[in-house]
Amino acid sequence: MESAIKELEEKGKAAKAASRRLAFLSTEVKNKALLNTAEALIDKQDDILAANKIDYEEAKSSGMSGAMLDRLMLSPSRLEGMAQDTRMVAALPDPVGEMFDMRTLPNGLQIGKKRVPLGVIGALYESRPNVTIDISSLCLKSGNAVILRGGKEAINSNIALARAAQQACDQAGVPQGAVQLIESPERTLVNHMLKMRGIIDLIIPRGGASLTKLVSENAAMPVLTGGIGVCHTYVDKNADLDKAVAIAYNAKVQRPTVCNALDCLLVHSQAAAAYLPILAKEWAKAGVEMHCDKRALAILKPIQSLKPVPAVDEDWGKEFLSLTAAIKVVDSLGEALEHIEKYGSGHSEAIVTEDYSAAMRFLNEVDAACVYANASTRFTDGGQFGLGAEIGISTQKFHARGPMALKELTSYKWIILGNGQVRP
Amino acid sequence: MESAIKELEEKGKAAKAASRRLAFLSTEVKNKALLNTAEALIDKQDDILAANKIDYEEAKSSGMSGAMLDRLMLSPSRLEGMAQDTRMVAALPDPVGEMFDMRTLPNGLQIGKKRVPLGVIGALYESRPNVTIDISSLCLKSGNAVILRGGKEAINSNIALARAAQQACDQAGVPQGAVQLIESPERTLVNHMLKMRGIIDLIIPRGGASLTKLVSENAAMPVLTGGIGVCHTYVDKNADLDKAVAIAYNAKVQRPTVCNALDCLLVHSQAAAAYLPILAKEWAKAGVEMHCDKRALAILKPIQSLKPVPAVDEDWGKEFLSLTAAIKVVDSLGEALEHIEKYGSGHSEAIVTEDYSAAMRFLNEVDAACVYANASTRFTDGGQFGLGAEIGISTQKFHARGPMALKELTSYKWIILGNGQVRP
Repeated sequence: MESAIKELEEKGKAAKAASRRLAFLSTEVKNKALLNTAEALIDKQDDILAANKIDYEEAKSSGMSGAMLDRLMLSPSRLEGMAQDTRMVAALPDPVGEMFDMRTLPNGLQIGKKRVPLGVIGALYESRPNVTIDISSLCLKSGNAVILRGGKEAINSNIALARAAQQACDQAGVPQGAVQLIESPERTLVNHMLKMRGIIDLIIPRGGASLTKLVSENAAMPVLTGGIGVCHTYVDKNADLDKAVAIAYNAKVQRPTVCNALDCLLVHSQAAAAYLPILAKEWAKAGVEMHCDKRALAILKPIQSLKPVPAVDEDWGKEFLSLTAAIKVVDSLGEALEHIEKYGSGHSEAIVTEDYSAAMRFLNEVDAACVYANASTRFTDGGQFGLGAEIGISTQKFHARGPMALKELTSYKWIILGNGQVRP
Repeated sequence: MESAIKELEEKGKAAKAASRRLAFLSTEVKNKALLNTAEALIDKQDDILAANKIDYEEAKSSGMSGAMLDRLMLSPSRLEGMAQDTRMVAALPDPVGEMFDMRTLPNGLQIGKKRVPLGVIGALYESRPNVTIDISSLCLKSGNAVILRGGKEAINSNIALARAAQQACDQAGVPQGAVQLIESPERTLVNHMLKMRGIIDLIIPRGGASLTKLVSENAAMPVLTGGIGVCHTYVDKNADLDKAVAIAYNAKVQRPTVCNALDCLLVHSQAAAAYLPILAKEWAKAGVEMHCDKRALAILKPIQSLKPVPAVDEDWGKEFLSLTAAIKVVDSLGEALEHIEKYGSGHSEAIVTEDYSAAMRFLNEVDAACVYANASTRFTDGGQFGLGAEIGISTQKFHARGPMALKELTSYKWIILGNGQVRP
């Protein structure tokens, strides 16, 4: 344990030292390192997949759930996807050095802001090994050093991926220490990491609710939390039913294991009888398990092909991460808003309606990172939003909200150009 | 103690409830409350000054330092200044509701950001009672509820000021609970407040290093730290000596008790012999005590009218908050940069030089909230920077850096307007 702490502290110091040089590293060198990384993901795919296979088999035999196994698994096509994402980060504009809000004050001072990296980012994440490459690529492009701490269930995959990235960085001339992976499985290292204020400038937990809570309550440095998505879609009485079926189907079925998938469908009582049977039959074909409140159950139970079950209290506010949805019938937009305020996690919430005022009220009053009218919550994603990448989806309000990419990994400094001004 | 905690929790709940309504409160009502507050500061000045006199006398008899007494004291002209500041906040544009970064994606989704309040701000501050009005005005204008916890040495002043603000808000129709003051002097209440995640969305400590450290290490919610200013002015070998005298004089003397005042003067060895005697004579007339390194001492000691003293190790990196300055002679810009990196607090740093490349290097490499070329660090201030106000000066990098005002008390949400889009 002591040697693990010592290793962590040494990696921290190395990251800090690297961050000072990274702040001035040319875009050219950073991009070269990213393109090298993309190449390495393909060139070294046999090694990476072999390492991933060890993790996968161990996780499977230890009884990991299907959703978690899906997150853990790498494949040639997923590696190609990761390489493509890394090339996309290389192609994005460098956020560092951007000057903005420049102006001249009445006393002649020229004043404005210059975008700078945050310094050292600590990343704590769970089973998805692709996060190792995602986060290190985004940190590198934004001029930050990174200390990665993945889940122990993905340790072999993460070691293989981090080595590929580190070698790619070395070859491009990036300062040593820019990308660091904590390899020790000691759980208490996380607590130690959370106290490294002055070394780690920002900590990003990417994982379940318990990790987020642990980090938020114990970190001595700023935290960027997110990832927990309890997402509602509300079908209003004036909804276009075709749109409402397509949107709710997509939100639940297209990729059920991720945070922006639908968890709870709210339906206005005046739309429920016409809408729910159509949607439920489509959902049933896709294998969706439906946990219904009394009124939804009364509508769906009589339909032969369906097997809806009664919802229990825990279904409201639950992030299912699987082909399960809670369904509740409400009597008004106001009731839907109250339900979302009580049970939502501030991630992504949608209304389906043709009523202008209802849409405006929903957009105005729902307090979430992403609020939709007439679209699937599955769009909450850095790539889909046109940010070119994503380091996570913030569900806190401070600094950044929703999909975060390069700009969200930077800060700014004020630059003041004078010619002898003093304060009167 | 238990009743104090109960009171705190009730105030927290009331603030949270108020914050939901504040988010939609019209600019008109908010401005009316601010103008009412400004009026109340003048109308009720007898009560406020009487309360302040109790605090001042008690603090004086308990041996409070001159700098702290100056911070504590109110006067008719300071109240008029506070009223004027409050009117200025009323005149500023309302940041809430601003829509920005709106664009249409290739799939037809219209996507952008809408500025929203953070929710409930917790403010912990020390002896300056004007902070009570400053912070509550800025929180109100930005649609946030605020829980104020001032220093016990200013408790009578703070109660009088908070009541004036609360009555002004009530009369304007602001929801009850928008402005709350914790009156109990129990120190442990602060620890309790730092754990109120879910109630308090952001905590702002405004005070000395120990308060900042306590809050940063223990708060379960985001923290906006700042206020500690260990500020350097570096006079380069190619400095214009007249500018350098005026700037260093202003930075040290104009208001020595505040965070953006000069603490340490760095002088290039090729400029020191010509520069230091001129500045030191001006500083001596103003009563500045000079703590000199060996080389600065060798230059200043022979001058009859001066009484420079040898610097001790603790003088480097010290925030003096008084008419004291440390002086060090360096042999290069690089040495100055190293000294600033080692001892600066990331607040405000200045170079005085006519050398273009030296200025650019300083602006580029110094990692501080505000980096100056050829101007006094005393300009680091929301009002001076044209923000119209100031809730504090951030020395952290996350979310906001340097002077913070209305925009820095807000977040945003993503708004997505679709017409049936689903993710392919």
